[in-house]
Amino acid sequence: MITVHHLEYSQSFRVLWLFEELGVDYELKLYERDPITRLAPASYKKVSPLGTAPVISDGDVVLAESSAIMEYVLDLHPSETLRPEYGSPDRARFLFWFHASQGSMMAVLLIDLLLGMIENKSPFFIKPLLKPIFKLTRASFSEPRMKAILKRAESDLATAPFFGGENLTIADIVLSYPMESMHQKGLFDKKYPNCAAWVERMHESPGFKRAVEKDGKSSTVFTS
Amino acid sequence: MITVHHLEYSQSFRVLWLFEELGVDYELKLYERDPITRLAPASYKKVSPLGTAPVISDGDVVLAESSAIMEYVLDLHPSETLRPEYGSPDRARFLFWFHASQGSMMAVLLIDLLLGMIENKSPFFIKPLLKPIFKLTRASFSEPRMKAILKRAESDLATAPFFGGENLTIADIVLSYPMESMHQKGLFDKKYPNCAAWVERMHESPGFKRAVEKDGKSSTVFTS
Repeated sequence: MITVHHLEYSQSFRVLWLFEELGVDYELKLYERDPITRLAPASYKKVSPLGTAPVISDGDVVLAESSAIMEYVLDLHPSETLRPEYGSPDRARFLFWFHASQGSMMAVLLIDLLLGMIENKSPFFIKPLLKPIFKLTRASFSEPRMKAILKRAESDLATAPFFGGENLTIADIVLSYPMESMHQKGLFDKKYPNCAAWVERMHESPGFKRAVEKDGKSSTVFTS
Repeated sequence: MITVHHLEYSQSFRVLWLFEELGVDYELKLYERDPITRLAPASYKKVSPLGTAPVISDGDVVLAESSAIMEYVLDLHPSETLRPEYGSPDRARFLFWFHASQGSMMAVLLIDLLLGMIENKSPFFIKPLLKPIFKLTRASFSEPRMKAILKRAESDLATAPFFGGENLTIADIVLSYPMESMHQKGLFDKKYPNCAAWVERMHESPGFKRAVEKDGKSSTVFTS
């Protein structure tokens, strides 16, 4: 049986969701963040070779990287719909979103998060100098990239209910992290109604609900 | 026939390499960067829906995102070794590195690149203030993450010649971009001999050499 090492309020919630969606047995180990630093506990770092969440273990195999874990789990527990294979009319669309999630959306989100962290932690006399520089960085770098990808999300979600096409796929499950983060920040209001509706639809998915119950936390994403 | 829209000095070189490795026909369209701004030309932005490189087109399908393109091409031109499937002893290792390339390594590299760009473009009187802040950011955020992943690369490359295991895989081809970038910056010297040797070994691969010939440029990665 696969063990899911689940760090609360982290990208590992998605692995819970996948297992609940598949309805197969797994062992769940919960790890709590330090209440003050919000960092992963030492016990998590011991099990996670790169210090990242999620991690699963399966006998001798210890595997990190959300999308790799999704594929590994589906290898062992095949699904007709969660990973559209070659021949499916949704294959190209699925591939794009599955890889764009961690490769593009999360990367841009990480940059935004980091700029915010630098601003917050800087001494008060530097903040007024940083603000215009970071504003320019966002305007020239992260915002146009995020806008382009959200515009694409908006138009794709107008033609089918899921990122992966006609069915819920692991592209949707991995995308739930960056999409939920942006939704909680209010970024979808008005401008991206299909994105907002997709997030709400995911909340109603039975697999998601069961995972939320197992998780037992107030949010499925990191909140600082 | 698939058309590869190749922007010089960009992540799209890897798609050329894949095609040369497979030895199948493709149409190559080369796009040059603006000599002053180094940005992609308007003609590239027209063909690339998100403004990113690489992009391929195949009839009605226009596909971006390097790793998605790799999988799409292998669907049409299967290879026994380039994508280890379920059942291969290299499957878990391949999945980890294939997804870690764009999901972790490129993301951290992008952050480093961006911090460097902000520093360079800032007014001279702000630079001395930014320097210590960015140094701290690198020391606490990007450097430990990159160190962890390179340590893992170093130990995995000690047990098999490729990231994907016993054979050249699309994990290796996608990783060539971040790995080559770090190698050119001299980051592998002494500390990461297996990583340096891997880059040199890739340079000797016949498919890589043919792609370099088709490309005709002095570098396979972006150099500012």
